[in-house]
Amino acid sequence: MRTPTEIARDYIALWNETDAGTRRALLTTTWTEGATYADPMMTGAGPAEINALIAGVQERFPDFQFSLHGNPDGYDEVVRFSWALGPEGGEPVAKGTDVVRCQGGKIASVTGFLDQMPPTG
Amino acid sequence: MRTPTEIARDYIALWNETDAGTRRALLTTTWTEGATYADPMMTGAGPAEINALIAGVQERFPDFQFSLHGNPDGYDEVVRFSWALGPEGGEPVAKGTDVVRCQGGKIASVTGFLDQMPPTG
Repeated sequence: MRTPTEIARDYIALWNETDAGTRRALLTTTWTEGATYADPMMTGAGPAEINALIAGVQERFPDFQFSLHGNPDGYDEVVRFSWALGPEGGEPVAKGTDVVRCQGGKIASVTGFLDQMPPTG
Repeated sequence: MRTPTEIARDYIALWNETDAGTRRALLTTTWTEGATYADPMMTGAGPAEINALIAGVQERFPDFQFSLHGNPDGYDEVVRFSWALGPEGGEPVAKGTDVVRCQGGKIASVTGFLDQMPPTG
């Protein structure tokens, strides 16, 4: 059984990975085949769609990194953690909290919330 | 479509309702028949079990009230809000954040997290 912190760190590493093939491999090993992703701005299902969502966010915020904010917690197969997005070592431009549900240790669904809205335009 | 704030307020009112029959009626009108509840300390499924869970918490913390903390947010059929539990007008003894998933406007699942642990013993 992986800890909430391990699951959260892998998740953040996936969002920071800029190589699509490496992301796809990470999605295959750490997410279920039918995994779903939803946040206030976008939704996706399955590794191909989720991989494309991540690519889109990286294109929108080049040179920015996701980082873990605070301490992940969880119970059973549910994990909660907060993150920040911004330039390395600089002020975040967005913050959020994600609730992840696992099945057999793999991420099966992500429900994301924004704690600080990213800039528009 | 009910707003996140309306859903959160009804939820808090349910937890503060001390009459079991009134709670059962609220569960019938605002939750789905197969609704599930989970937090780090307990789980329940269906109105009878969830009604009993609420009764148990009220017995453990008599005279305490739940109140909404901050502003509920959400999208599609997902709502997130934070709450506090404590004596009316006094310092909270516990705080948490709940993620609620609705179906057709009724609560179908609650995934709760603790932001401040209640006292033990």
